Amino acid sequence: MNVFIVHAHHEPQSFNGAMTARVTKELEAAGHSVVVSDLHAMGFDPVSDRRNFTTVAEGDYLKQQREEQHAHENSGFAPDIAGEMDKLDGCDVLIFQYPLWWFGMPAILKGWVDRVLAMGRMYGGGKWFDSGALSSKRCMVAMTTGGPEPRYVAPEGYEGLNPPMSAILTPVHHGVFWFTGMRVLEPYIAWSPAHLDADQRSNTLDDYAAHLMAQLEQEGAAPPVAAEFPPPTFVRAKANA
Amino acid sequence: MNVFIVHAHHEPQSFNGAMTARVTKELEAAGHSVVVSDLHAMGFDPVSDRRNFTTVAEGDYLKQQREEQHAHENSGFAPDIAGEMDKLDGCDVLIFQYPLWWFGMPAILKGWVDRVLAMGRMYGGGKWFDSGALSSKRCMVAMTTGGPEPRYVAPEGYEGLNPPMSAILTPVHHGVFWFTGMRVLEPYIAWSPAHLDADQRSNTLDDYAAHLMAQLEQEGAAPPVAAEFPPPTFVRAKANA
Repeated sequence: MNVFIVHAHHEPQSFNGAMTARVTKELEAAGHSVVVSDLHAMGFDPVSDRRNFTTVAEGDYLKQQREEQHAHENSGFAPDIAGEMDKLDGCDVLIFQYPLWWFGMPAILKGWVDRVLAMGRMYGGGKWFDSGALSSKRCMVAMTTGGPEPRYVAPEGYEGLNPPMSAILTPVHHGVFWFTGMRVLEPYIAWSPAHLDADQRSNTLDDYAAHLMAQLEQEGAAPPVAAEFPPPTFVRAKANA
Repeated sequence: MNVFIVHAHHEPQSFNGAMTARVTKELEAAGHSVVVSDLHAMGFDPVSDRRNFTTVAEGDYLKQQREEQHAHENSGFAPDIAGEMDKLDGCDVLIFQYPLWWFGMPAILKGWVDRVLAMGRMYGGGKWFDSGALSSKRCMVAMTTGGPEPRYVAPEGYEGLNPPMSAILTPVHHGVFWFTGMRVLEPYIAWSPAHLDADQRSNTLDDYAAHLMAQLEQEGAAPPVAAEFPPPTFVRAKANA
């Protein structure tokens, strides 16, 4: 299998770094191929605008989805985006490796989603959820948290949010992975690795590697059936005019 | 009142642009003061790492929260971050104006959250939720969607996600606004402005302005009581060592 890890942490010596290093070694030893996009090391730019394109559909008004569709039809994605798209196309399993920041992905990873999952190429025109363009792929979140496990699970919850980790994962599971048609594997969450001692960290890395290898044998949760809503159109929303 | 709008859209002529322009005019006419951070126009950098700081607490290992605490104690925030912190300090009401992308904030806005809401200065050491550092402030989401309203509300929902807009707003309402102690005003959501004609767009802008002016008379939803968990510590998580 081809596994693509999109890795979003600024410190190579971090626990996130150790997680990616460990499963890369484990996967390769098992005969799988691994590609890692280490976003901070690559200097990945998370801002989505005309920098995504070498083509222009409409020069005086930027409607990102229209430009994405146009770039898709005219090989007009900027090299940094085209490279990530190729990696995604080539993978069987996609892993997002990141620390939980403000109940979500760090901006550098959110920007990877914003820019790489372009309309026309990755979704749109009826290609979403159960008919999604990425339906041949499986995906998984591998995450670290700052706080300890009880903050994120029922019944304690996160100040009234229950179950908090489900709410935290909904945008990525439902809004990104399922939206594009991928099947979702069980996430792996390393709870507060900053508070673990050396043995606990080592055991957690073993546990993560075992989790991933076991998940590779699973089908993953399939996306829901797409509801029948009108497909997006390209009406120009020039509100100031 | 001092209103601070953090505006995240790459097209000045967009409906997001029109929303910010409209309420700026309305607020100023009513005698309020308005500050806008137009993140794309500013070239705001959303990547969070050592670029946030002019100081260094620990040079060979980047633990962001430790560096934030250190920068807070030593006036060590980089000028772009310090400037945003000053704007936030000076406001009574914070508005996030953005288009919904992938069930969340565009990366440029998420990066504003990641970088500006620094530990020590904006939260931490027991300052969160009902004892949050920003408890004197109110805040509001003003958002546009791509899809029409029925996709985002019960009972149809977003392919099984119900109620979807509540799930979509949880990370920002609970994880950002409440986390830092702010009181949350009712969000304003402009449903699929790309599909509105000129009259509908004009009416929607009127509706948004009226909504905001009415919300300024409200107290906003107070954050929940912080649960008693141990405060974060700075154990070094050098997993590879």
